[in-house]
Amino acid sequence: MHFELKHTDPHSKARAGLVHTDHGTIETPIFMPVGTQGTVKGVHQQELRDDVQAQIILGNTFHLYLRPGLDVIEGAGGLHQFIGWERPILTDSGGYQVYSLATSRKITEEGVRFQSHHDGSYHFFSPERAIDIQRSIGADIIMAFDECTPYPCDYNYAKRSMHMTHRWLKRCITQMDSTEPKYGFSQALFPIVQGSVYPDLRKESAEFIASQNAEGNAIGGLSVGEPDEDLYSMTDLVCSILPADKPRYLMGVGTPVNILESIAMGVDMFDCVMPSRNARHGMLFTSEGTINIKNQKWKMDFSPLDVNGTAYVDQVYSKAYLHHLIKAKENLAIQIATIHNLAFYLALVKEARARILDGTFRKWKDEQVKILGRRI
Amino acid sequence: MHFELKHTDPHSKARAGLVHTDHGTIETPIFMPVGTQGTVKGVHQQELRDDVQAQIILGNTFHLYLRPGLDVIEGAGGLHQFIGWERPILTDSGGYQVYSLATSRKITEEGVRFQSHHDGSYHFFSPERAIDIQRSIGADIIMAFDECTPYPCDYNYAKRSMHMTHRWLKRCITQMDSTEPKYGFSQALFPIVQGSVYPDLRKESAEFIASQNAEGNAIGGLSVGEPDEDLYSMTDLVCSILPADKPRYLMGVGTPVNILESIAMGVDMFDCVMPSRNARHGMLFTSEGTINIKNQKWKMDFSPLDVNGTAYVDQVYSKAYLHHLIKAKENLAIQIATIHNLAFYLALVKEARARILDGTFRKWKDEQVKILGRRI
Repeated sequence: MHFELKHTDPHSKARAGLVHTDHGTIETPIFMPVGTQGTVKGVHQQELRDDVQAQIILGNTFHLYLRPGLDVIEGAGGLHQFIGWERPILTDSGGYQVYSLATSRKITEEGVRFQSHHDGSYHFFSPERAIDIQRSIGADIIMAFDECTPYPCDYNYAKRSMHMTHRWLKRCITQMDSTEPKYGFSQALFPIVQGSVYPDLRKESAEFIASQNAEGNAIGGLSVGEPDEDLYSMTDLVCSILPADKPRYLMGVGTPVNILESIAMGVDMFDCVMPSRNARHGMLFTSEGTINIKNQKWKMDFSPLDVNGTAYVDQVYSKAYLHHLIKAKENLAIQIATIHNLAFYLALVKEARARILDGTFRKWKDEQVKILGRRI
Repeated sequence: MHFELKHTDPHSKARAGLVHTDHGTIETPIFMPVGTQGTVKGVHQQELRDDVQAQIILGNTFHLYLRPGLDVIEGAGGLHQFIGWERPILTDSGGYQVYSLATSRKITEEGVRFQSHHDGSYHFFSPERAIDIQRSIGADIIMAFDECTPYPCDYNYAKRSMHMTHRWLKRCITQMDSTEPKYGFSQALFPIVQGSVYPDLRKESAEFIASQNAEGNAIGGLSVGEPDEDLYSMTDLVCSILPADKPRYLMGVGTPVNILESIAMGVDMFDCVMPSRNARHGMLFTSEGTINIKNQKWKMDFSPLDVNGTAYVDQVYSKAYLHHLIKAKENLAIQIATIHNLAFYLALVKEARARILDGTFRKWKDEQVKILGRRI
């Protein structure tokens, strides 16, 4: 993996770059749709490529490890082969889901013991195991095993946890260095900055992470319930410390406004379940603001789903039709809304990149955050 | 609407024809995917056109009348406009669902009073009302309002019901003649032969229906639980009476084998929820027989879904991947399986048509029924 910084906006800290992987090049800033169990829910792989125009998707190690399991993924020749997706994939380390989804879990210095939410079976993830599993899954970018602290988080807990995350990182790096990729293409490890909402911890963590000279760096432990001002101040602080010549990935963020503001601080990569999850509840992100398509006001609105939308669903289906489908609990509603929202997110970061390159990003961003924050 | 009989197989009663409508020409024999509530569940309209290669789809009057309602469909300019489907549509009369789905219903000579299964509201369908509603929906082919008798059905009930269906047909025809299409394209009314599994009733009904000189004719009241020998003997009998220069539509049939056998008796059109409904439960119809993709035997089978399949899903996804998706209750499983099954049905009738035209239908059909009836 290799990052090429193409341009930095003179009026903000926004950057346009290229992440070269063995599965192709990603234009940054980029948004990565979440494909939890080996599928971006409700979207065919060819729709993801051609309509959403996703350049990289995210898989969840925790879910994939439990189901279908590593025997199946290895048997297929890795996740790309298994799901039929030829572009880059990033996997998280499984840590976040262990804390949020497992039936029970116990964290020690060695790692985390947890129970499957499917069948109650016991499992153990350690930094070494998380690397091995991600080697088996075969993502292009793999994440260090960390503890993602909740919000709010006691200062002393946050500090102890951060130091453990740093020790775990060293073990991840050692494990990476002593193992090989399984499918003939390279895998890059991204370490994760923690430190909750405490500036001194964030600074210490960012400096430690920066010193590891990884191929890319991530900011974790945000978008977990903290106010936007904390999200922004921590992101800005961490971006000012992380090296400029490596991509910066802000994990789990966020709304369209969050993404534009974070791009302005120098973030290059994003993932979030919001566009896909909210689509399933009828919330559409559009160029004019946020729509709840379940609202009666759309019942007789036969205008296209989004006149400015880039996906075919935006032009061929009307608001009234999607309103009907979601009221009737039809699967097609989820399919249409998910493609729309993901295509909207991808078009937004694409436009941001073009604006960075032509020098109009800052002004455009300030206008967009006003529009995109509206509910219509 | 105009039917053009192109060829009749010399070794069976199979026919190849063309049904010309204002929304395009349908090649017969044809299978019509069922789009109950204005959507073939889980399938985008462009997938239906390009991947399934559907030439005509079916809508359910009962469902569409209750939800989204005629105000919405009329507001959109008819069902084609509302759902974004430019090819022909056929609507049933609503009768079958009134009997099978409504919370309560009372049949009189005048019509049927019933309660919505959504909100308990009362509604009344009569032959005249069924025509008016189908005028509002705007299908190319609309069905007469009939009573579909259950199986088994007492002879005297079947006889009385059939005579009422005949009287209702006259009222449908009168209503058709005294009303106009609403959206500028023509609509053809198909009457329906009833008579349960009683040859004398079927003969009487087929003769009565044939005498109406409609643009096409349907065989109803079958595929309701009767043995295959009754399905076939009734179909064969009725086809021998219905006019050869009009298309024959066997309602609600059936398995791939049922369809091939019925084509051999002179049926031109089919609809059935089986390929789409069974897809949702993991049953795939393939060129080698029927598969239950939930079965553990497919867990590690990385071969394409169907090497002989015509849809893109057959080549880009493996059996193991679909097995995983359906076990994980992912929507994409339904989407893939539905496209596969519908494409299989459409490819089957397309092949049947080619075989009829080149004179090899009978031999091919006899081979296929052995293969397609297998479970693998």
